[in-house]
Amino acid sequence: MVPPSGGPAASPPGLDESSPPILRADVAVIGGGVIGHCIAWEARRSGRSVVLIDDEPGSGASWAAAGMLAPVSELHYQEEGLLELMLESSFLWPAFAANLGRAGAGDFGYLTTPTLAVGADAADRRALMDLRAVQEANGLQVEPLTVREARGREPLLSPAISCALAILADHQVDPRRLIASLREVLAGHEPGAGTAVDGARNGFAVDDRATALLWEGKRVSGVKLAGGGTVLAGETIVANGLQAAALGGLPDWLQLPLRPVYGDILRLRVPQHLRPLVTSTVRGLVHGVPVYIVPRQDGTVVIGATQREDALPGAEDTGAARRAVTAGRAVSAGGVYQLLRDGQVLLPAVAELELLECTTRARPATPDNAPLLGRVPAPSSGHIPGLIIATGFYRHGVLLAPAAAAICRDLLDGRNDPRWQVHSPDRFSSQPQAALQPTKEKA
Amino acid sequence: MVPPSGGPAASPPGLDESSPPILRADVAVIGGGVIGHCIAWEARRSGRSVVLIDDEPGSGASWAAAGMLAPVSELHYQEEGLLELMLESSFLWPAFAANLGRAGAGDFGYLTTPTLAVGADAADRRALMDLRAVQEANGLQVEPLTVREARGREPLLSPAISCALAILADHQVDPRRLIASLREVLAGHEPGAGTAVDGARNGFAVDDRATALLWEGKRVSGVKLAGGGTVLAGETIVANGLQAAALGGLPDWLQLPLRPVYGDILRLRVPQHLRPLVTSTVRGLVHGVPVYIVPRQDGTVVIGATQREDALPGAEDTGAARRAVTAGRAVSAGGVYQLLRDGQVLLPAVAELELLECTTRARPATPDNAPLLGRVPAPSSGHIPGLIIATGFYRHGVLLAPAAAAICRDLLDGRNDPRWQVHSPDRFSSQPQAALQPTKEKA
Repeated sequence: MVPPSGGPAASPPGLDESSPPILRADVAVIGGGVIGHCIAWEARRSGRSVVLIDDEPGSGASWAAAGMLAPVSELHYQEEGLLELMLESSFLWPAFAANLGRAGAGDFGYLTTPTLAVGADAADRRALMDLRAVQEANGLQVEPLTVREARGREPLLSPAISCALAILADHQVDPRRLIASLREVLAGHEPGAGTAVDGARNGFAVDDRATALLWEGKRVSGVKLAGGGTVLAGETIVANGLQAAALGGLPDWLQLPLRPVYGDILRLRVPQHLRPLVTSTVRGLVHGVPVYIVPRQDGTVVIGATQREDALPGAEDTGAARRAVTAGRAVSAGGVYQLLRDGQVLLPAVAELELLECTTRARPATPDNAPLLGRVPAPSSGHIPGLIIATGFYRHGVLLAPAAAAICRDLLDGRNDPRWQVHSPDRFSSQPQAALQPTKEKA
Repeated sequence: MVPPSGGPAASPPGLDESSPPILRADVAVIGGGVIGHCIAWEARRSGRSVVLIDDEPGSGASWAAAGMLAPVSELHYQEEGLLELMLESSFLWPAFAANLGRAGAGDFGYLTTPTLAVGADAADRRALMDLRAVQEANGLQVEPLTVREARGREPLLSPAISCALAILADHQVDPRRLIASLREVLAGHEPGAGTAVDGARNGFAVDDRATALLWEGKRVSGVKLAGGGTVLAGETIVANGLQAAALGGLPDWLQLPLRPVYGDILRLRVPQHLRPLVTSTVRGLVHGVPVYIVPRQDGTVVIGATQREDALPGAEDTGAARRAVTAGRAVSAGGVYQLLRDGQVLLPAVAELELLECTTRARPATPDNAPLLGRVPAPSSGHIPGLIIATGFYRHGVLLAPAAAAICRDLLDGRNDPRWQVHSPDRFSSQPQAALQPTKEKA
């Protein structure tokens, strides 16, 4: 069944009249983070009707994300396989941002100021210089500066830093504002159009939780909602981060080995007499531990970089009132301490800032730290029709969102770029010969 | 004019019929912190009708307070003048808590577990031993422990501490719960009474801001409210902390030299496997800087002790939306860092806690760090009738609240204990011969 095009509308296509509300759209996107919203917007731009399903849009990993667009400084050893995708998305970002602006989005904090990588001690300098060799071997530009030059650009940098490198290609965006902008644009707010057509305006948003995929024969036909409703869609895109593995109706043989990697992140306000604290994003290595300081144009900075594979023990003993999805949101006192300590090593004036917010979220990581992105192969028909997976973006969700959106659009249009085959969502699965039918939960 | 006794009731006593609402009560208490609530309850217990005026009750210094009841460890050099009042209030606390419990209050976290004073290094040990000499010279009991003994009591204490002292007389209460309990009891909730009489139940609370005292001839006759209303009262008690100095209608010659001293304080949750983190309150001196860790029975701990005389610069540049009264509530990143750092020096497991909350509030301090407490002397009549001042409690508001309440009740009853004359609210003022009439703002 291929639902007809047009805005989502309540309609009972062949189901019992007494059943709960049914929406239909060309594309159903499960998950309202940066990835889900970018995919939804790209699908909408392709002329398709779209619904985006999330009961707490923007509240997951995207809520914490610093928004660094950093293909160069995010290049990690053993992760060169990701580099092509990161560079592709970095290349897409300027046009993506311009299109979003042209569509009438408000300021979403897209800044192309360079990034400074700095080291605290001699070992940090060696580590950054070793990484620079890998970066340059991959064709990436990294410009060594003297400490004097670095402090000429950023006078509040500590004079005790051991090295500095300028990275012109690493930029930033404000993920919270980005999601707000995408929602605004998805809601139908056009530039110059002062009035909104109700119904169309918020028609894209389904404020509910997806519990399972629906199937019609061998194809995915939509999404079952926790509230009892149903979304019928020609294509369903699973972009709900860590929750993807818990979605019902996925083929039993398909392994989505997502693990949470927790990060604590701080937001601080710079007092007037210290502004700007820095003009570049500062990515430091402090006695081997990474820390970053991202300046926003509103006079705040974001400090982050803790990575914990475990939620705080005891975080779950806060009673049933705290929902399972938020169990990993306990802020680590040790993490906050580390960020403030290492931030001060690079920028002593961090001690003089106002602490506005401490936030912790889990990022969806995979065994190779690369996303699970694409259609799900099937032996007979090439792939499972109606289903696209887009999760596991780990540290790179904000950078990779335009590429993820473009790749999903290609897939919707029937194109499959062989460059991204390496990120196929079935690469951790052993697909049985006859397995195609879902057995976890049937529609 | 002496208003009749009885519950507060709207009535226009001789004023224009078209004027805004008027309440009347025997006693009007301005300020809804721990001090104001304790005074209000004590006045109510004496059979008087009471209203308590605050548009944000419990949100000031009391919101941040750790609630240590610590006459011994809070004894500071040069502050021996306060000691008698602190010991008096410490002596009153058990009966105060028992009465509040008997009146039907829920648990307010009153704990008589001892306090441990610990030092981090040799200099801290010398400082604590010197202070102990002063404490013992003042008749206070302080019991030196070996580090081994201290860790026998509190196994998670760092083995690297330099000294430990047990202080049996220093206890704690939870100030937020205390205010909630006092409001509950003031609202007329009696033990065993399942139903509340409406009107009486919340009749004590005036959710408005006091702008000025009202006068009738040479006596204070009530309070003018920001919302346009009026409280007429036989006695008005000024207990609104730092805001007292800004109250209109005080005699011009009366100096209330209150200055804000800011403190950052953390609330953290102890994971199950680390409970109890400590059973005693731990007051540390870490390389000369004080830090305290107060365990609550709900599995949380409070860590505090920063003292800053200035609000964070730039805190006021957050726009008009932030009200003047909250301008000093900016949390210092350096303060949070210091608390987490020094807390870990004494209890390394602090790094493993969940950070729940960072709070900053200003405490009302005076030049001698003692309160401004009592009636205001006047040359002809002995004192200004109808007016009592109770502010400037600085670090000691929670400890001193029962004494402040008892002293105010004595004053209401016409008794004036000469022991507290030293805290007279006019001690920083030069009273002119003929000055009695207010000139700041007349009713």
